[in-house]
Amino acid sequence: MLYITRKEHFNAAHRLHNPDWTHEQNEAVFGKCNNANWHGHNYNLYVTIKGQPNPDTGFIMNVKELSDIINEHVLEKLDHKNLNVDVAFMKGILPSTENLAKAIWQQLEPHIKECQLHAIKLYETEAIYAEYFGEN
Amino acid sequence: MLYITRKEHFNAAHRLHNPDWTHEQNEAVFGKCNNANWHGHNYNLYVTIKGQPNPDTGFIMNVKELSDIINEHVLEKLDHKNLNVDVAFMKGILPSTENLAKAIWQQLEPHIKECQLHAIKLYETEAIYAEYFGEN
Amino acid sequence: MLYITRKEHFNAAHRLHNPDWTHEQNEAVFGKCNNANWHGHNYNLYVTIKGQPNPDTGFIMNVKELSDIINEHVLEKLDHKNLNVDVAFMKGILPSTENLAKAIWQQLEPHIKECQLHAIKLYETEAIYAEYFGEN
Amino acid sequence: MLYITRKEHFNAAHRLHNPDWTHEQNEAVFGKCNNANWHGHNYNLYVTIKGQPNPDTGFIMNVKELSDIINEHVLEKLDHKNLNVDVAFMKGILPSTENLAKAIWQQLEPHIKECQLHAIKLYETEAIYAEYFGEN
Amino acid sequence: MLYITRKEHFNAAHRLHNPDWTHEQNEAVFGKCNNANWHGHNYNLYVTIKGQPNPDTGFIMNVKELSDIINEHVLEKLDHKNLNVDVAFMKGILPSTENLAKAIWQQLEPHIKECQLHAIKLYETEAIYAEYFGEN
Amino acid sequence: MLYITRKEHFNAAHRLHNPDWTHEQNEAVFGKCNNANWHGHNYNLYVTIKGQPNPDTGFIMNVKELSDIINEHVLEKLDHKNLNVDVAFMKGILPSTENLAKAIWQQLEPHIKECQLHAIKLYETEAIYAEYFGEN
Repeated sequence: MLYITRKEHFNAAHRLHNPDWTHEQNEAVFGKCNNANWHGHNYNLYVTIKGQPNPDTGFIMNVKELSDIINEHVLEKLDHKNLNVDVAFMKGILPSTENLAKAIWQQLEPHIKECQLHAIKLYETEAIYAEYFGEN
Repeated sequence: MLYITRKEHFNAAHRLHNPDWTHEQNEAVFGKCNNANWHGHNYNLYVTIKGQPNPDTGFIMNVKELSDIINEHVLEKLDHKNLNVDVAFMKGILPSTENLAKAIWQQLEPHIKECQLHAIKLYETEAIYAEYFGEN
Repeated sequence: MLYITRKEHFNAAHRLHNPDWTHEQNEAVFGKCNNANWHGHNYNLYVTIKGQPNPDTGFIMNVKELSDIINEHVLEKLDHKNLNVDVAFMKGILPSTENLAKAIWQQLEPHIKECQLHAIKLYETEAIYAEYFGEN
Repeated sequence: MLYITRKEHFNAAHRLHNPDWTHEQNEAVFGKCNNANWHGHNYNLYVTIKGQPNPDTGFIMNVKELSDIINEHVLEKLDHKNLNVDVAFMKGILPSTENLAKAIWQQLEPHIKECQLHAIKLYETEAIYAEYFGEN
Repeated sequence: MLYITRKEHFNAAHRLHNPDWTHEQNEAVFGKCNNANWHGHNYNLYVTIKGQPNPDTGFIMNVKELSDIINEHVLEKLDHKNLNVDVAFMKGILPSTENLAKAIWQQLEPHIKECQLHAIKLYETEAIYAEYFGEN
Repeated sequence: MLYITRKEHFNAAHRLHNPDWTHEQNEAVFGKCNNANWHGHNYNLYVTIKGQPNPDTGFIMNVKELSDIINEHVLEKLDHKNLNVDVAFMKGILPSTENLAKAIWQQLEPHIKECQLHAIKLYETEAIYAEYFGEN
């Protein structure tokens, strides 16, 4: 069993805001991340798959194909977008790093067929990252 | 003559959009950076000053004081903000990396008194940065 | 189950030295890390917690609160200190990267209440890091 | 149980090529990685071991010794070499990142005696890395 | 006057070898970089241009266009190639980092028309980089 | 004219302290950097030389020789040392990043003979670096 990871990146705007709360509650919990006019990040995304290398290629999966899948199902929907407004698969979901990492897993998992999706690691900044391994 | 540099960072939303242009012109020139609902970045900012070290301290300027000046005059105005909407000193200025670097110089230069501001280096992403040295 | 990680850093002096050994033994095992007048490092610390995101916030735990806990219980005691001399929780413990990572876990674990501490990852240099997951 | 990791690096040339395939098949699967005159990489290698720290040293294993073992059994054989031509332990193995990571594990594992080899993490570029944990 | 820099990367094989020298001379000067079967690197390339931002765009030059020029005139010729064998513009030139940086300048300079090429910064490894500013 | 840079690193303890000042003055100016029992850093050092590449080698200067000079005249004196106590060439000099960068220039400059020393860039942390170009 081997693991291979592909790094990708995207830039997006977002806002942490709970519409069921008052302005004061939102300010108290989310602070400047609640700014009404948005802020944004350069997200770094690491997608890890696992499996046995194919003896003909040495590959668990061709990383070029993995990158194409990530581009089609994740980056085209997130890159240079507003995570609260523009992204169908984030509708009704608070765009925290944790929730976004899990949502990216759900976008990718059905398309990884020759091997298994193992981990999503998502950096919001150099100092904060979330990880999801498909565990309930 | 020595030079010392302090790195800071901030997160912001923005949009590249020329209001005098049609939608088609904006799309053609700015591409996905023109997204109507904004996108954003983790900006890394390097501020360089130059001068003679003070013999009593070994410092051109106390980096703690430099950091305080950058926080007061730049980061408090930019961090977790929308560069097109929330920032008084960017009003009417297209928030390209180049223009933002120059505007940051103009915010800081009057407050660097014991020595000279030498350079602003502003990373928009890991792959793009602008520099300004106060030259016309 | 999701995981979120916060990076912090601190600077400290230390020395690898076993007081039960002769000078020659210390030199043979610890080499230049045994220097009598100390040396030091910029430590990068990654603290990972795990749990279910709160549906109201999208957070396993507010990273701002996690950072406050790390600051109060770890960084205030280690930053700009001598690990052999100044740090109560390191008294009698050889300040290897392994031992320091485990001691940091023990400082933090009682204060992580809404979720679970999962990992301490401590870089002594860019080329050496220790990890502790609370395993005996 | 603690874990400690040592980073090393080496530079090598290689080519992804299956000698049982036609030129067209090789081009279709490996693309520019099939270039007949080779290409190359700066590889970053992270070797992780696990065990209990020795109470006399605070070390799972002296990282200096770990580094010496990696140098003797891996780097001297790979650094500034052609992975397809010059490396005895890669003979007949397609030099994909996955296969190379596993082969490095097999080189090192017999020489880690006081504790256990836990992981090989091998970066081919900043955007691609393989991991092997000794699992079948 | 502002400066903007675009980072790109490519992977290549090469060998440092002077055909006018004996094997012994080559070994003495170039050491393991003389390996007959090549070695290789992940090169990071930073291209800096300077000029006045266009008031309509905020850009000295659209970084997308700069990236296209670098791709067409440099990366397509170098990426996944052998610098000694495959690259027309390096024929007869020892592929040291210095010579390669200067040759990249010469490839790009005729194609930078709206503003001026200012610098080529080329990393061969994380620990070695060459710079060229067009000076004789 | 080309420039080539070599990165090296060293770890050291130090303390910012002016012996002509009271304890209160030292605290006020240097804060926690004045800690009586020292603190320390992982320093990253970039040494840049400039000149014409030798047509026989493609090198301004063999980077291996440059690295040997830096090791002999700088790293052997600073690595795993206390900058205030152990280093002859820092006697009587406040070990600020600025002063240390200038002192390293003075150590290296007499030994760079085939070409010119151009710059010393010294990182004390990821967020602070000093530069010296030999200017008065």
